[in-house]
Amino acid sequence: MIKIGIVGASGYGGGELLRLLGRHPKAKVILAVSETYAGKPISSAWPGQFNQNDLIFSPADDGTQLQECDVVFLAMDNGKAMTMAPKLLKSGVKIVDLSADFRLKDVSLYPEWYGFKHISPTLNAEAAFGLPEFNRETISRARLTANPGCYPTAAVLALAPLLESGLIRPETIIVDGASGVSGAGRSKFSLDYHFPELNENFSAYKIAGTHRHTPEMEQSFSQLARVDVKITFTPHLVPMSRGILVTCYSSLIQETTNVQLQAIYRERYESEPFIVIYGEGLPATKHAAGSNRCHIGMKVDQRTGRVVVISAIDNLIKGMTGQAIQNMNLMFGLDETMGLSDIGGLWP
Amino acid sequence: MIKIGIVGASGYGGGELLRLLGRHPKAKVILAVSETYAGKPISSAWPGQFNQNDLIFSPADDGTQLQECDVVFLAMDNGKAMTMAPKLLKSGVKIVDLSADFRLKDVSLYPEWYGFKHISPTLNAEAAFGLPEFNRETISRARLTANPGCYPTAAVLALAPLLESGLIRPETIIVDGASGVSGAGRSKFSLDYHFPELNENFSAYKIAGTHRHTPEMEQSFSQLARVDVKITFTPHLVPMSRGILVTCYSSLIQETTNVQLQAIYRERYESEPFIVIYGEGLPATKHAAGSNRCHIGMKVDQRTGRVVVISAIDNLIKGMTGQAIQNMNLMFGLDETMGLSDIGGLWP
Amino acid sequence: MIKIGIVGASGYGGGELLRLLGRHPKAKVILAVSETYAGKPISSAWPGQFNQNDLIFSPADDGTQLQECDVVFLAMDNGKAMTMAPKLLKSGVKIVDLSADFRLKDVSLYPEWYGFKHISPTLNAEAAFGLPEFNRETISRARLTANPGCYPTAAVLALAPLLESGLIRPETIIVDGASGVSGAGRSKFSLDYHFPELNENFSAYKIAGTHRHTPEMEQSFSQLARVDVKITFTPHLVPMSRGILVTCYSSLIQETTNVQLQAIYRERYESEPFIVIYGEGLPATKHAAGSNRCHIGMKVDQRTGRVVVISAIDNLIKGMTGQAIQNMNLMFGLDETMGLSDIGGLWP
Amino acid sequence: MIKIGIVGASGYGGGELLRLLGRHPKAKVILAVSETYAGKPISSAWPGQFNQNDLIFSPADDGTQLQECDVVFLAMDNGKAMTMAPKLLKSGVKIVDLSADFRLKDVSLYPEWYGFKHISPTLNAEAAFGLPEFNRETISRARLTANPGCYPTAAVLALAPLLESGLIRPETIIVDGASGVSGAGRSKFSLDYHFPELNENFSAYKIAGTHRHTPEMEQSFSQLARVDVKITFTPHLVPMSRGILVTCYSSLIQETTNVQLQAIYRERYESEPFIVIYGEGLPATKHAAGSNRCHIGMKVDQRTGRVVVISAIDNLIKGMTGQAIQNMNLMFGLDETMGLSDIGGLWP
Repeated sequence: MIKIGIVGASGYGGGELLRLLGRHPKAKVILAVSETYAGKPISSAWPGQFNQNDLIFSPADDGTQLQECDVVFLAMDNGKAMTMAPKLLKSGVKIVDLSADFRLKDVSLYPEWYGFKHISPTLNAEAAFGLPEFNRETISRARLTANPGCYPTAAVLALAPLLESGLIRPETIIVDGASGVSGAGRSKFSLDYHFPELNENFSAYKIAGTHRHTPEMEQSFSQLARVDVKITFTPHLVPMSRGILVTCYSSLIQETTNVQLQAIYRERYESEPFIVIYGEGLPATKHAAGSNRCHIGMKVDQRTGRVVVISAIDNLIKGMTGQAIQNMNLMFGLDETMGLSDIGGLWP
Repeated sequence: MIKIGIVGASGYGGGELLRLLGRHPKAKVILAVSETYAGKPISSAWPGQFNQNDLIFSPADDGTQLQECDVVFLAMDNGKAMTMAPKLLKSGVKIVDLSADFRLKDVSLYPEWYGFKHISPTLNAEAAFGLPEFNRETISRARLTANPGCYPTAAVLALAPLLESGLIRPETIIVDGASGVSGAGRSKFSLDYHFPELNENFSAYKIAGTHRHTPEMEQSFSQLARVDVKITFTPHLVPMSRGILVTCYSSLIQETTNVQLQAIYRERYESEPFIVIYGEGLPATKHAAGSNRCHIGMKVDQRTGRVVVISAIDNLIKGMTGQAIQNMNLMFGLDETMGLSDIGGLWP
Repeated sequence: MIKIGIVGASGYGGGELLRLLGRHPKAKVILAVSETYAGKPISSAWPGQFNQNDLIFSPADDGTQLQECDVVFLAMDNGKAMTMAPKLLKSGVKIVDLSADFRLKDVSLYPEWYGFKHISPTLNAEAAFGLPEFNRETISRARLTANPGCYPTAAVLALAPLLESGLIRPETIIVDGASGVSGAGRSKFSLDYHFPELNENFSAYKIAGTHRHTPEMEQSFSQLARVDVKITFTPHLVPMSRGILVTCYSSLIQETTNVQLQAIYRERYESEPFIVIYGEGLPATKHAAGSNRCHIGMKVDQRTGRVVVISAIDNLIKGMTGQAIQNMNLMFGLDETMGLSDIGGLWP
Repeated sequence: MIKIGIVGASGYGGGELLRLLGRHPKAKVILAVSETYAGKPISSAWPGQFNQNDLIFSPADDGTQLQECDVVFLAMDNGKAMTMAPKLLKSGVKIVDLSADFRLKDVSLYPEWYGFKHISPTLNAEAAFGLPEFNRETISRARLTANPGCYPTAAVLALAPLLESGLIRPETIIVDGASGVSGAGRSKFSLDYHFPELNENFSAYKIAGTHRHTPEMEQSFSQLARVDVKITFTPHLVPMSRGILVTCYSSLIQETTNVQLQAIYRERYESEPFIVIYGEGLPATKHAAGSNRCHIGMKVDQRTGRVVVISAIDNLIKGMTGQAIQNMNLMFGLDETMGLSDIGGLWP
């Protein structure tokens, strides 16, 4: 059994890791770090996990305990993983980092987008970008994987086949996304996430290229298109807890039919266990809730020569913890789908 | 007092007309037609209006009773108003039609988008398009006004200043909208609107130029830009009851600052009583809920040379009944804001 | 025009007072105190009130400004009104207090239930209990009115006719209530009111006689029954913003039919402008949302000899601000319904 | 592997059975009957189960195919199972019936409460009542198990320890329940379950002893108390999809402390794998969502001599499909928790 440590175990990511890893046949969480709940049972933070786990939350330590793990999932605020990673890696512990600390290959982007100078540029260069559908080999050899952001996961999976096939003009890409409120985490309380203010309300936030996931998407899009790509990204907040849906727009380089379009997606993702391609119908966030799947639908707008691609994921699973486990599986030579193939959300 | 008839009085539009007109100082609903609730009091369909109205719902009639009205609001399914309008107008009754029957000036669009041939092309040519911010004079002289759709109202108000000022490339316009479920009406029951299926779910529908509001937006955009404009429009469904938010994208023709952008909007809408322009902050649907206002925020995405404009309205008020009353006020020479200036939704 | 001051104007109660009083024909808010928003326009806290009000929030003052008001609505945390009231009253300002400071006639209850000793017992004795349906005369003569709590308003209106008529055994009363989240106010942020935790969740809180509205209900019930009444009260939290529904149980003293039951309610509330008695059907919170009405339905459970009475109010209107305005109207000799008769919420 | 058939596989119960049984180590669904989706893949009805199942929905047959199953779950409207059961049982197929057809031992109750005369009284007498915590032995020997209703499951588990120990007066029992909308099923569309009408709304329905779960609770309560018990039951509808919370009231026969109370529950449910007893804190529906657990909290209201017991379950799992699988496990000699011990809902 792979011994696992989770730092940030009382956040939404931590809770999902505990829940999902509790069912993993070859891994076991041995350390769940949470300062808020230290000394208390898992069910104190996660009443849905009564009787499923006899762990007690641990306080943050100096790393001694974490060093006994085979792999540590770091689910902390941005800027913290880069300070903890060096020591852990030196002890032979592998890391899946769920923050943004190792996502951007161009370290000069950190001061601009995250407000801090990167203190481990060498590790940053080494880290694998954890999107298995495009980086499987690298992740398999990695000791440090940067788990992608939720919006980038949805958007890159949505547009990659078109960028790879050179079918669209990359400079025309617009990503319009919408997320459930769990994306804001579990520890920041303010009027912004106060139930009565969000309920029966829909809004955009951090528009016009100011959301931090913008450079992350651009990094992947640029790699796929082999040119420098800049996009417009607009996130929205939906009065629901779970799920991300992104609606992506781009101009087609040549006339294309819906049949051709679907063929490209089906071919590209044919052997991908977690990608669902729609023929008729369209993805909705509920379709993906609770699973590690990304549901993708696409259509040509013949009147304007644009393509519209819609993808839906569970922001906390394929957009976070499920993908992290998928990465862990790869890093330990396990079947990539282990512990992930038979999960799914409640309906309704 | 202006004597008012409402046909479709037990639909969401009808309910709002009853509620709002109940407070209008110079108008009075004398006839509320509903086949479903005929013979029953208003509160049977609208329990929120107990004691506010002693009307009884009337059955559909042959038009005799409606002819005693000064104005009739037609809130029926598409294709019905064009059959009722001729007789009513002949009797000297003015009409505000809330359906799509008189919105599209090019009657050849009806078979394609609505599935019927227009039977009153002359009246269609005569009808005023009821967007007061752009058509005030015409509406004032009209006996038949076509009340715009909810998405078009939000999108046209959002982009008009940029089109009028020639600041954007019209062919790059993308309108990404999201609506509360009341937009689907009150009488069509199916799995699509079954509470457990919609709750905690977000989806797109009728994408890639297939929603009927597409040609309606294009008609207004083309008039404003003085060129033929085709757009990509994507509607989404939000798990909430009220409100529409549209996020509009377009490429700027020349470099523009946020300050310049706002100046254009403020100047254009300076004297408009129902338009709110944002400096900082962004509109959310809750800001507009219950009022006849359109809240608009805009920002330049300097990285891509695009502008992002966001507008929020109450889909059933500025997007429907409030605008209809605004139109009625104009058609009867009243202050345009009468009965509408002091309304607003509950918060929270 | 009655000059009004509001202390706590950026809380949910304050926002509703601003909105509702903005339409009152004989009163005008001249001072809106909010420490958080001092110096900013009303729309900074209440984006739904753009253009409806040109007031600027004032900082808390030493009372000088408030003394220029004819009446002050105090919408603050418990324990503060009793310190401010003496000075204001001495200056001739009338007070409607929306906190619990003057609700309990037995001052010995304050340490037990509210954790403080009452510092103005004389004023407390003087204060009118602001439930107009039972205390109209006293309120009309009062300079200080204690506005009732939201649950007690709903429960007392629901059970009073049965207690007055001696039809039930008071010792068998159980009040089971459910409230939207706005009841928790707008300034306390915690996991308890974090959107993702409350959404899709229903729970009870402060059960078994530990909620502070218990002694307030008992006070009214005891007065009505002319015996000392103790009840069991259970509040629940509903994933919605507005509304309270209470389901009240009591054993009947003698066999009673539904017809007799309704007759008692109709007779008792015949002339009450804000009470709606149901024949068939049952109240729901949406029926009352946005209005100052209390909707009451009742049925005999013949199998057990109990009566079940259900009442629905808008917790922030009849349960708070609307009732406060109703009280103000009485205190100033105005028609009790002024500014309140034609309001109602959005549907849907 | 146990071969399973599901009739009603496109309803909410059917979907959960498919999802949960898909992970059962010793059972396999071989036949999923749905008239609506016959011939289509499982994901056509359940988009959350893409790639998890290669079954195709079957049309209703004459029973031939069902006879090849070892056990059939009947998830149909009331009145249908009693017509199908005899033939299936004769063929050696075991049945777990999720309808009410075999729940009430006194067949004379069916005409009164369900509007039909029971056509299989002998089978009804034979059927085991499927509440494992109280009927484990009987279920283990049964070929036909009547799966209890959702409210009765929550209420009986909540009050049984007090009835068994003789601590309460059975005639004082009041059950106040609240359910998510999935309890209304997936196939009845009407204004009652139309999203905009239910959203931001809370209501009671079928009050004063008119809900069909009343006699079912009374049957269990009477057995436990060994006297004939009549109760008052009030169901409420919560604007959420999943979960039931019942708040139960009863008068204590003698003075009891919270410590004594909890001891009774802990002792009674000590070895029960699916019961969670609260010390501090209270259950909420989210605690139980997605699991087969029943979460129970209880407190004495010392002021009135009553006990308040609150229990939360997932209405579709412990209140329906999870319990059905628990019963199947017992009927086939498997560990009762098989396939059920590690499930749980998403949080948030």
